[in-house]
Amino acid sequence: MPRYRFLVEYDGTPFHGWQRQSHGQPSVQGAIEDALERLTGEHPVVIGAGRTDSGVHALGQVAHADLEKSWTGGRLRDALNAHLRPFPVTILAASEADSSFHARFSATGRLYLYRIVNRRPPLALEHDRAWQVMRPLDAEAMASAAQCLVGNHDFTTFRSSECQAASAVKTLDSLAVTRHGEVIEIAARARSFLHNQVRSMVGSLKLVGEGKWSENDLLAALAAQDRAACGPVAPPGGLYLAAVFYE
Amino acid sequence: MPRYRFLVEYDGTPFHGWQRQSHGQPSVQGAIEDALERLTGEHPVVIGAGRTDSGVHALGQVAHADLEKSWTGGRLRDALNAHLRPFPVTILAASEADSSFHARFSATGRLYLYRIVNRRPPLALEHDRAWQVMRPLDAEAMASAAQCLVGNHDFTTFRSSECQAASAVKTLDSLAVTRHGEVIEIAARARSFLHNQVRSMVGSLKLVGEGKWSENDLLAALAAQDRAACGPVAPPGGLYLAAVFYE
Repeated sequence: MPRYRFLVEYDGTPFHGWQRQSHGQPSVQGAIEDALERLTGEHPVVIGAGRTDSGVHALGQVAHADLEKSWTGGRLRDALNAHLRPFPVTILAASEADSSFHARFSATGRLYLYRIVNRRPPLALEHDRAWQVMRPLDAEAMASAAQCLVGNHDFTTFRSSECQAASAVKTLDSLAVTRHGEVIEIAARARSFLHNQVRSMVGSLKLVGEGKWSENDLLAALAAQDRAACGPVAPPGGLYLAAVFYE
Repeated sequence: MPRYRFLVEYDGTPFHGWQRQSHGQPSVQGAIEDALERLTGEHPVVIGAGRTDSGVHALGQVAHADLEKSWTGGRLRDALNAHLRPFPVTILAASEADSSFHARFSATGRLYLYRIVNRRPPLALEHDRAWQVMRPLDAEAMASAAQCLVGNHDFTTFRSSECQAASAVKTLDSLAVTRHGEVIEIAARARSFLHNQVRSMVGSLKLVGEGKWSENDLLAALAAQDRAACGPVAPPGGLYLAAVFYE
């Protein structure tokens, strides 16, 4: 049974996250599995590299599935895209993968982007695609403070109380904050992230940008290893799973 | 009665264009007029610089309206934005203007942007925000051919049969085609445009990009002064009224 690897783009707005829901609410995984079923008559399970939350988008999610029939990558991509309509989920690429390839467990790195639009008027064109923050943010202060989160730490403060990871100790490879006009982009890279980790870090960095928190406050929040020390979690619509890396 | 000038951003997808519709279909003008009415109790008419079509967006539409009451710009902008919800229309700025200011007739230039995403897979995140063109486009050929449309010409070929302008002779100041990865952006600037002119020019430039038309074919289409010589009109979702210029 050949294994196939997919590169997936989606608008997370209408979905209850990546993962198939037990009560049938729409999910990205469910949309792809249903499309594969309609296409092949098989009942494949689709495994994703990152289980994005409700409302979170992907520019480059990676997934895999085993199919009985053999496909060329291009034909599988096009046929699957036809069956995915009208869902805002697109297979950017499909290819046969080694049977040892696992979208989640083989991944050696993940890159998330978080998009803030720092302006007073609401977003007409980027509603659900960015976080509108009204107060002027000091992106340089955010960029500088972010560096204290980089490295190997216990991220208990920055993970959801529902996080199921065995350990809260993770290595954050980089956390870069850059401003282009009214847009502030935060890029976070790590081997893997805890549940809500990026949105939790962004929510606290926003407090730094507003001047409500100093760099020391952020450091103290990290050191507290206490969920209650975290700033308000940033909304999901600004978050994008941008890329997943493999050996 | 003070006159106010507005800078407006909108997602054109849910609207039947800028202009208020006689049968009550949603329009951007109608949304702003209704919000002003709810806010002020007055019945102002809102005049826009460009009457964008159904599905066309704006990053920087300019409009004006006369109000009985005096407002500071910031307060009018914020109050109007509150009343515009949940429509995807945002007042980016409001200010008192000279009574001689007219959003449409005082304008000395308009800049439209057209966004093509040149790739085979459908657009999950930019559906209705860009034109997905599957065949590889030669953006350099498009950029070069576009120059034959710049200048003072009879644009009969590139205007809608419903265009109400007295003359089809217009001066196109610039038409720039640039590629950034899979995105091709076309920027068109002129004092004013005919109905459907930008989308008609883009539709024909796409034929050049696909290699179906040469630069001479584009020149011949312009010279024909015949609507039937135009390529298929580009869809509205890729078009943005980016800026309006005044003395």
